[in-house]
Parts: sequence; structure tokens; C-alpha cells
Amino acid sequence: MAIAGIEALIAAALKEDIPAGDITSESIIPARSMSRAVFMAKEAGVLAGIDIARLVFKTVDPATRFEKGFEDGRRFKKGDVLAEVRGRAVSLLKGERTALNFLQRLSGIATTTGKYVQAVRGTKAKILDTRKTTPGLRSLEKYAVRMGGGQNHRVSLSDMVLIKDNHLLLAGSISKAVALARGRVQRRFKIEVEVTNVVQAKEALAAGADTIMLDNIPALRMKKIVDWARGRVPLEASGGVTLKTVGRIARTGVDFISVGGLTHSYNSVDISLEFLS
Amino acid sequence: MAIAGIEALIAAALKEDIPAGDITSESIIPARSMSRAVFMAKEAGVLAGIDIARLVFKTVDPATRFEKGFEDGRRFKKGDVLAEVRGRAVSLLKGERTALNFLQRLSGIATTTGKYVQAVRGTKAKILDTRKTTPGLRSLEKYAVRMGGGQNHRVSLSDMVLIKDNHLLLAGSISKAVALARGRVQRRFKIEVEVTNVVQAKEALAAGADTIMLDNIPALRMKKIVDWARGRVPLEASGGVTLKTVGRIARTGVDFISVGGLTHSYNSVDISLEFLS
Amino acid sequence: MAIAGIEALIAAALKEDIPAGDITSESIIPARSMSRAVFMAKEAGVLAGIDIARLVFKTVDPATRFEKGFEDGRRFKKGDVLAEVRGRAVSLLKGERTALNFLQRLSGIATTTGKYVQAVRGTKAKILDTRKTTPGLRSLEKYAVRMGGGQNHRVSLSDMVLIKDNHLLLAGSISKAVALARGRVQRRFKIEVEVTNVVQAKEALAAGADTIMLDNIPALRMKKIVDWARGRVPLEASGGVTLKTVGRIARTGVDFISVGGLTHSYNSVDISLEFLS
Amino acid sequence: MAIAGIEALIAAALKEDIPAGDITSESIIPARSMSRAVFMAKEAGVLAGIDIARLVFKTVDPATRFEKGFEDGRRFKKGDVLAEVRGRAVSLLKGERTALNFLQRLSGIATTTGKYVQAVRGTKAKILDTRKTTPGLRSLEKYAVRMGGGQNHRVSLSDMVLIKDNHLLLAGSISKAVALARGRVQRRFKIEVEVTNVVQAKEALAAGADTIMLDNIPALRMKKIVDWARGRVPLEASGGVTLKTVGRIARTGVDFISVGGLTHSYNSVDISLEFLS
Amino acid sequence: MAIAGIEALIAAALKEDIPAGDITSESIIPARSMSRAVFMAKEAGVLAGIDIARLVFKTVDPATRFEKGFEDGRRFKKGDVLAEVRGRAVSLLKGERTALNFLQRLSGIATTTGKYVQAVRGTKAKILDTRKTTPGLRSLEKYAVRMGGGQNHRVSLSDMVLIKDNHLLLAGSISKAVALARGRVQRRFKIEVEVTNVVQAKEALAAGADTIMLDNIPALRMKKIVDWARGRVPLEASGGVTLKTVGRIARTGVDFISVGGLTHSYNSVDISLEFLS
Amino acid sequence: MAIAGIEALIAAALKEDIPAGDITSESIIPARSMSRAVFMAKEAGVLAGIDIARLVFKTVDPATRFEKGFEDGRRFKKGDVLAEVRGRAVSLLKGERTALNFLQRLSGIATTTGKYVQAVRGTKAKILDTRKTTPGLRSLEKYAVRMGGGQNHRVSLSDMVLIKDNHLLLAGSISKAVALARGRVQRRFKIEVEVTNVVQAKEALAAGADTIMLDNIPALRMKKIVDWARGRVPLEASGGVTLKTVGRIARTGVDFISVGGLTHSYNSVDISLEFLS
Repeated sequence: MAIAGIEALIAAALKEDIPAGDITSESIIPARSMSRAVFMAKEAGVLAGIDIARLVFKTVDPATRFEKGFEDGRRFKKGDVLAEVRGRAVSLLKGERTALNFLQRLSGIATTTGKYVQAVRGTKAKILDTRKTTPGLRSLEKYAVRMGGGQNHRVSLSDMVLIKDNHLLLAGSISKAVALARGRVQRRFKIEVEVTNVVQAKEALAAGADTIMLDNIPALRMKKIVDWARGRVPLEASGGVTLKTVGRIARTGVDFISVGGLTHSYNSVDISLEFLS
Repeated sequence: MAIAGIEALIAAALKEDIPAGDITSESIIPARSMSRAVFMAKEAGVLAGIDIARLVFKTVDPATRFEKGFEDGRRFKKGDVLAEVRGRAVSLLKGERTALNFLQRLSGIATTTGKYVQAVRGTKAKILDTRKTTPGLRSLEKYAVRMGGGQNHRVSLSDMVLIKDNHLLLAGSISKAVALARGRVQRRFKIEVEVTNVVQAKEALAAGADTIMLDNIPALRMKKIVDWARGRVPLEASGGVTLKTVGRIARTGVDFISVGGLTHSYNSVDISLEFLS
Repeated sequence: MAIAGIEALIAAALKEDIPAGDITSESIIPARSMSRAVFMAKEAGVLAGIDIARLVFKTVDPATRFEKGFEDGRRFKKGDVLAEVRGRAVSLLKGERTALNFLQRLSGIATTTGKYVQAVRGTKAKILDTRKTTPGLRSLEKYAVRMGGGQNHRVSLSDMVLIKDNHLLLAGSISKAVALARGRVQRRFKIEVEVTNVVQAKEALAAGADTIMLDNIPALRMKKIVDWARGRVPLEASGGVTLKTVGRIARTGVDFISVGGLTHSYNSVDISLEFLS
Repeated sequence: MAIAGIEALIAAALKEDIPAGDITSESIIPARSMSRAVFMAKEAGVLAGIDIARLVFKTVDPATRFEKGFEDGRRFKKGDVLAEVRGRAVSLLKGERTALNFLQRLSGIATTTGKYVQAVRGTKAKILDTRKTTPGLRSLEKYAVRMGGGQNHRVSLSDMVLIKDNHLLLAGSISKAVALARGRVQRRFKIEVEVTNVVQAKEALAAGADTIMLDNIPALRMKKIVDWARGRVPLEASGGVTLKTVGRIARTGVDFISVGGLTHSYNSVDISLEFLS
Repeated sequence: MAIAGIEALIAAALKEDIPAGDITSESIIPARSMSRAVFMAKEAGVLAGIDIARLVFKTVDPATRFEKGFEDGRRFKKGDVLAEVRGRAVSLLKGERTALNFLQRLSGIATTTGKYVQAVRGTKAKILDTRKTTPGLRSLEKYAVRMGGGQNHRVSLSDMVLIKDNHLLLAGSISKAVALARGRVQRRFKIEVEVTNVVQAKEALAAGADTIMLDNIPALRMKKIVDWARGRVPLEASGGVTLKTVGRIARTGVDFISVGGLTHSYNSVDISLEFLS
Repeated sequence: MAIAGIEALIAAALKEDIPAGDITSESIIPARSMSRAVFMAKEAGVLAGIDIARLVFKTVDPATRFEKGFEDGRRFKKGDVLAEVRGRAVSLLKGERTALNFLQRLSGIATTTGKYVQAVRGTKAKILDTRKTTPGLRSLEKYAVRMGGGQNHRVSLSDMVLIKDNHLLLAGSISKAVALARGRVQRRFKIEVEVTNVVQAKEALAAGADTIMLDNIPALRMKKIVDWARGRVPLEASGGVTLKTVGRIARTGVDFISVGGLTHSYNSVDISLEFLS
């Protein structure tokens, strides 16, 4: 179990890919024909999902053998052999697409995350994911973010208070919103407040926010808030962060940068299954 | 039912997002406080998933009202109001992220597809998707491709013969592979053969292939194959197609261009839920 | 994985059969009592589902041993031992009914299919199944048809255009319907048109149909259409086909005969589990 | 809820039938085109599943209207209109096959059951089903048996003791087996014992069996056991019962006749969906 | 398979406990660090669920080793080692809570049942459970009752007629209700009738009830009904039974005592997982 | 949606309770007989699950009418009418047990929680739940705790660092463990450390713990730690807390008291469904 519930996801994926047999492989290739294939990286990246790929083949055919060349979280370069799989040729062909669909996406997330982590090296900023995940795959995608060196923001609406503009609109003021939330969660859960300027940040800190989110603020203004905060409260930059802007944002001195794009705009890594025999 | 089984996907998505209540909204906003919000396009695109967004809110709270401004498949521009939703403020906030996670992704696929379709306008080439879909979401993603003006390639391994290089490696020759497949599927299913040059294309046609896939072939060589084919067999270009290259490929005269990137590299469209009260 | 998703089906079947223990076996037979039993054919047939039977016992009790005497797709005669299973007696008794419920039904489909295939021997007609399958079991049933020597018609509404009388009623004419469908699917998917006479058949061919379905047409009139077609387009006979009529239909020279009865009127094969000790 | 869990079955059935849209109907018929169709009986029978058919269309499209002409359990004759459904033509075509797959099968079971019930009219014998049901559909099929006038035998291995030959083989003797079972279930659950002659029947009665099952016994010998029993214990005839033999068996005076064929050999009733506009 | 469908329950439990990794263990403990731990009884009880605990760890990490010290159904005392588990420390920590949540609850039910069984020792009364089980866990909980020496009452509404006060209110009289039920189920299913005094009991017996339930009747009056019944019909005491009252109830001579509290008021047994290294 | 995914839980519960019809109600009560019933409190308590009860009846029969007398979270006293339900008598009887099984348990948790909250009134201590929840029902049970006035501790292993004795055993020291965890989660997640004396508490605070858990510490020693802490760090008392001890613990001045018993030892509230007609 790399991930709780992964078996059901794999079963669903195989069912949608092979509802009534693989009519190509089954008609062309003898049932007992054995084969050997390798997962080959066609570009550099960070690996995530290799155990899931293994589980896909085991589900298709328990007699399949799978040997990992890399573990999740490891960087690979173009041409690296990530794993080798041996077994009935028809079984390998049946599992190929589903295994790759998991592996390419998750490695894509890990690789993208790795690039952001790289881009902020030398600063204290940590890269966070968001709740902008694919419906039903949140656990998997947050796992991939961790493999890429990122950290997971809150898992769900149930485990952190995050007061956003919409809440403020409905609550009236930051002070009131924080007070209401604190009354409910005490010091059990972190309370984070989204602000857009230093006045709001001050109000949030005064109200007792544990973290302050700087939403879509230009780097210059962000720097001023960092200076004002002087480490009294962690700051998270958020909103429209890209690989181009993340470095500049990090150098303002914020503690965290959350990047929706880690998971909301998938970026598959090119990995292929090459048949050797 | 825009899509068979969508209810279960929505339930799973809500469950992972709200395992133990929305501790922010529930503590700050009175349970009976009503609200009104609009789905606002922050960039232009093609819509897909608006009925799913509606169903998300209905699942969270049947008393929610949802009015569509656009139907799936329609183009929208920045600033367009795609839908309006009214109901208990807490319910709107609970459904917000899940609804957006569906809507942004599917519209992202539809929008990307629309760009490819646009890029080949004036040629006879049709844009196809692939089986490189997110595990468990194939139906949804293929629906989004159709909304974007693309066409669906085969749904699964069970409904078309597609003989690829790995099959050829194992079968020995194109002629042999096609003969075996034809013996099995007769003229019930299409047989498509992946080739990399005109010699293989000739062998495939002679063997009785219904469609020929040109895999990763430079445009110039592709043009030669198109000239040779003279419409006797449909040709599908495949492999590493991008928005930059798709026009040139289309102008070679191929009939179909399949683009893995429509679904393997998600590209969310920026849509937000703006609270008006 | 004989079939994607089979594990979930087996779990559901066992759950409905043993919600709170096997009160007979558990009270009468010592928990450690070992036993040996064989699957015995009580009549001749074609096997389908033997790996599923194995998986049922493995699910009930991983310590069970299962040895196949026949593989799926093989013909067996009355008295043949299809498999042997050894393990805890209570485990064998718990798995017995569920294993047989799969095995008898699937072998029933394979055997019936085999009879149709036999009945058209010497003609060029291939026997096809339909979408008239048991809800939730389509993959399994189509697998059984293949084991019986039949071929699978389309898997679902998503992978072939099949224009039936109801579509024509709504579309106006065959030509119009085919044109609309062709505009949508191009040459990606086969278009089949259901006709009832030669005039319609001509219109369908002219419109570009890939296959023509002859629905409920008397053999004599069918023969005329075959003569007219002269192989220019594959012909599929359909509608009320029985073992009595299938031979005559095949001898008209049609290419395919689809038989709803393969799956819509189950015909279990008599197989029993005989305990040897 | 005709049946607990029916929604999930319908969702699974629709998902396997429409994984990526109905490419025929969607390309030929305008999305807003409305239609009206009736479920027409093509042969006489007993209805079962009409509420499920309704639910199928509601799942496909909540805007569909469905009006029943008959209720489940009612006999219908050829030409009867069982229900009428109105709505978007594309929605009706999408739900058609799945609705019929449920309705034809369940009505087939109800109709077959009705024939057995008819064949034993005038005797005291009641027709029972068995556990030979389709994996995953036991609730549905037992419901159909009730609609046909039959009675349900035990639901599962958990709610009645039924000592069969295999248990006796493992337990040693009828007396010992019944004593063990009685010690466990006391008088909470019925204990039924399968016998093949009057000697065994006597032993079973002496041991305290609540019901005696006469397994595959010729009618003449069965009559003798009935005479011996004189109502002291209910008798159930079982094994290879057919419509031809059931009357003779019933006239021996047995109380129950269990018929595996009610559910193990499906017999769909011919019902079609006729489009009126 | 201790219990049909248990795998799905375990997967769901792990998914809700570890949606995005164990952030404590994974950050503190090296991935390859091995460990050994024992399930230690912190109080005496009766074991139930030890195979489920094993399966939890196998699901988390197939490389885990699990050795049972006790089998389900066995009594243990404070300090007993119920099982030992070895494997990666992180895997043990991930499975710990879920394994305990199953084991403590099920052993709690078995232990409570064992106390009731103990309290009626020397009488003929058997302890029964009820349908007051946790939604979705009925199979598991009824299994635990059996492990504690209790017997299972009916599994569901489908396998025994139990006429309660609400049915009588709606049916008019006991005689009428029993006659209707008998007409339907014949002698296939037991008919039990709930009564509150000897007059009703007489009517129920005369009407042909198989068992009579004495609902919330004081011990003295219950004794009178037992005397009247003289074994002609089994009697079940029910309603508000506690460990304090069960002995007195049993000594009235009733055959069965059903105790909702076995499952409706969970009583976890204190078992902990102690890490030895 | 009181709770995400509740529909699936209700479907599963109904399926296990009514696999093949309610043979009592269906045989005794005319299908069209209408009825009215009220949920009556047989003892005082705090309500939780009333919307789930409503949904159970709606699932059984959409035509049922349900009117709430109380909302979740409200206190009720013996004799209060919590809700009224009207509809077909058979439908009410089918839903009765499942509705009560949810309602009694959840209200039991809410009521127990309410008692703990009451017992600490006048102190600053907040009552928390734990992860000792019923497998698969965590969301529901945590909801019930909130209804009772308690607060939810962490939802899962993924949303808070909680360093327990087992982690310390494996990590070596508190300082090392906290440092490792902090390195991973930064200030994104709370870090809580379990200690058993003031020396450990000091080390934890020095290491940067956000909260300190006092595990199974006598009240006197706990008081000393509270005095030492002087509010610098929130303190949570944990381990073997009962209604008898919770007040004394609260008066030591701790901030939180977590009580496994809220959910690990179910305590159903006595609520019945009384039929009025």
C-alpha cells in the first residue's frame, strides 16, 4: 500500500481500459509467449508511482515479475531504466497503458514540484500544494508532491482553518472571523488568514492568526509585509505562482509558497515501456 | 447523467475534501446565512463540466439553486458568467473547490482540444484523443474532448485493433500480425497499423489494414506517404504532436491527428467562484 | 485477472451468500477438517470461468489449493474432471455455490455459443454476441462468448455507430442518418445500418455504411440481398436467431450472425463439485 | 427502492454501456429533439422490474417522464403496453438497452416462476427458488421469483441449516450432523436434511429435522416417503425439476418444490421499446 | 476471508486514517527501520478479529510478518500476548490504529457476549444478538457474537418472520397476522410473535407461531408463561436485558434471551500494541 | 449531505438488512396501507443523525414524508418527539431499524460527549475525540462529537504531527523527534508530543512542540506541569479519562482533554419509532 485505497483505483482503471479483452494482443500474440520490457525515461525527472506500476501488473497477472531500478523520490535522467518487468507478453501489453497513466502523471507532479523546490533553493521558502487536485486522486497527488520535495498543505476542509476573502465577505471583518474560528477550534488547529495588504496582515496577527496568506501580492509589497512580520508569524505566498515568478517570491523571505499548478495543470513526464523481447 | 457513474465520483471527491466538516465555514458563518455566487471565467476557453458543477452543489445541499449561463461545448471569454449558484453560504463554500476541480480540468481539456481544432482549420484533419487519460476518469475526459470539438479515438483495448511496434516485435511482421487479427475480428472491428515509413505502409495496406498510423514521422516523409496513399486508406498522424507542429502535420493531408497531450498533460482553465453576497 | 474488476464481483457474490457465516458447515464440520473435491462435468460443454472459480476459493481461504484439469475455451464431455480443489472442508463448502454460479453460467454461454458456431460450420458466417448482457457482467459474458468461439460485437454505445429503426424514425432517412454519423466519426468508427429490404440496403451502401444489418428478414429475401451485395459490404443477420434457424441463415452467405440469446437467455451447464474426502 | 442497492447496479450497468457517449444517437439526433416510446410486450408473461426501468431513465436524465401501465407481479399478454416513457430522444435511446436488460431478465424469471406455479395448481406444493443466482444479483432475482408467485428459499448460508450429501460425507451420519447443528442453532433456525430414501428420512425425522429434502428421487419413491411422513414433517422435492416433471412431483403431495432453473437458466421475456415519435 | 467483503472495509478504514501519509512516522523514523511489536491485553476478555488485524498489516505492507498467539473465540487474561507483528516500523505504526479499532471493538462484543453467556450458565437459555448492529458492519459484529459464545438471531428482514407490536397494530390481531404470514412463508421460515402476556401467548400458539417473544415482561409474569408453555413452543425473552437481570430471566426457563446491548452499545476491550524494538 | 458519502453507507446498511424483502411486513400489511409514526425519546440526550434518519426513509421510498421536531445538536428529554414520518406502512417498517441504528448510535456519541462537556463546565478544558472510531464511520462519529459540544482532534495521520511513546522509542529522544518532524512540516502543521513527566515536558517545549500531551498522568502531577507551563504551551490530558475523573483533570487547568471513550465504546441512546396509525 503506497497509498490507501490504491487497489480500487487500479481495478477501476483496468476495467475502463479492458472491458472486453485486448483484442489486438490476444489475437496476435500466443498466450504463452513470454516477454521482457523496461520502463525507460525519455526525459529527466523525479520518480513517483513506481510501486503503483508494479501493482498494476500484479493485478493483471500475479505471475508477472517486476524489478525496480529507482525508488520513488529519486531523480532520473533521460535514458535511465526505471524498472524492468517480465512475464506473459499479453499481460505486459494489457498493463502497459494503465501503468504508464499512473506513472507519467505522478512523476509529472513530482518533477514539476522538484523544479519549484529547485527554484527556491537558497531561500527559506517551502513549496506547498493546494486542494486543487483531481477528483478522487487527492491522496495520490499529494504523495507525488512529497516525492518531489514539496510539502502538503492541508488535506481537506476538516483539518485547518483557512479564512479566505469569501469568508471575510460573509463574516464582516478579519477580527470577527478569527475570533469565531478560535472559539471553535481553540489552539487545536492552525488558523490561517488570507490578506492582501499590510493593514489586513496586522489585523490578522492581532486577532491571533497562526499563519498569514499573502494572496496575489506583488513581490515588492510582499517584501514590506515580510519586513513588518519579522518572523512573528509564518507567511505563505499564494496565487498565480509560476516557475518564472517563484524565485522572486521566495527571495522576499516568505516561509511558504503554495502552488496550485503542481496538481491543477498536470504535466506528464515522458516515460515509455520498451519491449526487449 | 452527463456521464455514467458521475455520482460516485462526486461522492468520492466530496468525501476526500470534507471528511469531518468544513471547520472554517462552519465556525465563521451562521448556518442559515444565504449567499449568491457566480462562476466567472478569468480567461477565455471552451466549457465542459457545467452540469457536473451543478450536481456537486445538489449533492452537498439539495436546496441549492443553480442556473447555467453557458452550456457545455460553448466558447466563453474572460469575464463571462458561466453559471450562478444560490443557497446556504456554507453549502456554497463546501461545494466550491470540488465543483471547480471538475470544471477547471474538463474545461481545460475542452479548451486545449479547441485550440488544436482551430489550428487545423482549413485542412481535412480531425483531432483525436488517446487512451492517455487519468485513471478512473476516462469517460469524463473523453466527454471533454468532444465538447472541445475533438473526436474520440478508441475507448479501450476492446473496441479496435491497433497494432503497434511492440506487437510487431512479438508477431514478426506486419502481414502476419494483420492476418492474425483479421482472422479474429473479421470486418467487425477496424484494424489500424502503426508504421514508420512507406515500405511498412505498403505492407499494411496490402495486408488489409483499415487505417494506418504514422508514428513520429517528420512532416516531409509524412507528405510522401499521404501522396502514395491517395485516399485509399485513412492516415493518422501520432506521436509528440504539439500546438506548434499540428498545423504543419495537418497540411500534409493526413485524415486524423491523435494528441496525447489533450488529456495526459492537464491544463486547467482559470475559473473562479465569486461571491456576490 | 481473467477479467478487470472480477475481484469486486467475487467479493459482492460472497457477501450476499455468506453475510453471517455458513451455519451448516461451521456447526457440523471441525474447523481443521481437510477435504478434497473435484469439479465434475455432468454434461458436455465448453469451459469458461475456471480461473474465476479458483479465485473464489482463494478469496474464501488463501490456503486452498486449486489445480485445473481444463483451460477455458476447451471442450469437455460428461464425466470430465474440470479441476480439483483441496483445503479446509469448511472453506470448500463456503466457496462451492459462488464458484459454481460463475462457472455454470459462463460455461453455459460458452457452450451455447459453441453450438451456434458448430451449426454454421462450413459457411463463412461468424457468430456475434449483442449488448443484451446481464447488468454489471458484460465483460464476463463477452469473455465467455469468446471462449465458445464466438466474436464480440461492439462493447458499448461508445465504440461503433449502429443505426437502428428508432434512429431512422427520428432522423428521417438512411442517407441523412449516415451522413450525420459520418460527419461525426469520419472513418474512425464503423457505421452499421439496420435495413429490412434491398432498397434500404442500397441506400445504406450508397450512403457509405461499413456494414449492413439485416433485421428479421426471411432467409429467402436475405439471400437476395447477399446476391446483390456480392461482398461489397459485410452483412450481419440479426433478430430472433435460434439454433434451428442459424444454419439456414448462414447458408444465405451473410458474414455475421448476431445472437441475443447467447447472453440474454442464460443456459447454465450442469457442473457439480463432488467431495472425495 | 424496489431493491436495496439498486442504484449502484444501475450506475454500473450504464457505465459499462456508455463509457464515452452514445456515438450513434448523439451524432444523428438533435440534442433537444423530444420523443415518446412504449414498452411493448412481444409475448405474454409476468412483469418484474418496471420500477427499475423507470429508475434507469431517471438516472440517465431526471427530466424523463415515465408512466407505468402495469405493476410488478401482474400478468400481461402479447401487445400490452407495459409503460410509456417521454423525454429527450437521445436520453430514451441511451437508457433503452439497460432498462430492457433488467426488465426482460427479471420478467423472464417471474414468468418462468409463474409457469411452475401454474403447473402445480390444485396441489399443495409451493415453488421455491435456490441459491443458484447470478453473482451480485441475488436480491433482484429473488424479488422476481416473488413477483412470479414463487417463494424464496433461504437467502444465504447464514439463515438456515441445510445438511446436504457433502456435509453427511464429512460428518459421518445424519443423526450426528443434525445433533451438531441443533446444538448450535437450537430451535432458532430451521434444520433441513437432504435424503435419498425413506430410511434416511426416518433417521432425519428422528434426529429432529424441521424439513426433509428429497433430492433427485423418482416420483414413485417420493410418493412412498410422502405417505410415510403423513404431514409430520414438511417435505421439499429438489433436483432436476423441469416444467414437464413438476406437476407429477407436486401430485406426490410434497410441500415444496425447489427449482434451480428459475434463476440459473435465464429466460428473457421479449419486451421491446417502441418509439412512437 | 474471515468475513465476506472485509477487504473493502479495511481499505476504507485505512483511507480515512491515512489520506495523505503518516506525517509523524514518515518524518521521524527511517523508512528502512525495522521493528517488532506485540498486541498486549490490558484486561481480560474473549478474542475476536485477530485475522482482521493481520489483514490490516498485510494491506499496509505485504512484507509484514504476523504471528498469532491466540485464535478468535479464545479467552485471554490481562497481560497475554495476543499476537506479534514484525516489519518496517513505519508500516506497523500506520496499521496500528486501524487494526486496534477492529480488534478492540470486536473483542469487546465477544467479551460482553461471553459475560452474558457466563451469567446464564446452568440454565438452558441461549444468548442471542439482534439487528441493532452498526450500519455496514453487521457481518463482522454477528461474527464477534458467535466468537463470544452467543448465537445469531435472524440476519435480516428477509429470513424470519418476526411479528412485533407495530405489525399487530396494523394487522388487527395476532391470529390474523400469523395466518397472513403463514400463507406467505408456509413452513419455510420460522414465525415468531412478540407478546406481552399469557393471553396473547395462547393466541400466538394457537395461530401456529414457531417461537414466542416475551417483550419487556417482568420475571414473575414471564415464569407463568414458561409454566404454561411447558416446552410446546420456544420462548425468547427480549427488551432491556442487562447483565444484572439476565440471570433472573434465564432462571424463568426461557429458551432464548436476545440482548440488543451486545452490539448497540459497543464496549471496546483494552488491547494495546506495544513496541519491543 | 449531512456527511460526504452518507448515501453509500445508507445503501450498504439497507442492503444488509433487506437482502430479499421484509417477509414479515410484506405478508401482513397491505402494500397501500398508509401509516404515521414518531421518533420518541425514551431517555434524555443530545440529538445527532436526524437528517440521516430522514435520508434512510427517502431511500427506502421517496414518497415518505419526514418532519423534524428537533435539529442535530439540540438537547431533548424523555418523551420528546424528535421527528414524525408518514408514508406507506411497509416503507416505514423497512426503514425503521436502519434509521434507528444510525440515530441511536450517533445520538449516543453526542450525548456522551455532552456529559463530558457538562462535567468540565467552569474550567477552560475542551473535550476532544480521538482516532478510536468505528472503521468506515469516522466522519459520522466526529460529526456526532461536534453535535455534543466536543471538538475534533486530528482527522487522520495526515494532518497533525503527534509524537507518541512508540515514536520516541524508535527515534531516540524527544528533541531529535521534534527536530525531524519540524524539518519536515515546518510551521505548517502542529506538532504535539506525548510526555509523562515535567522533565519530558520541558524538553518538548524547548524542542518547539506546539502542544504537549500528558498521557495517563495522575492529577497531582498534572497540576505541577500546568503550573510549570503557565500557558506557554497548550496541554492536552489523555488516557483512560472517564466521566468520574474528567472533572478533576479539568480543574488542573489543562486546555484539552481527549476521550477515546466518546467513540470507542458506543453508548446508544434509547429512541424508538412509535406507530400512531
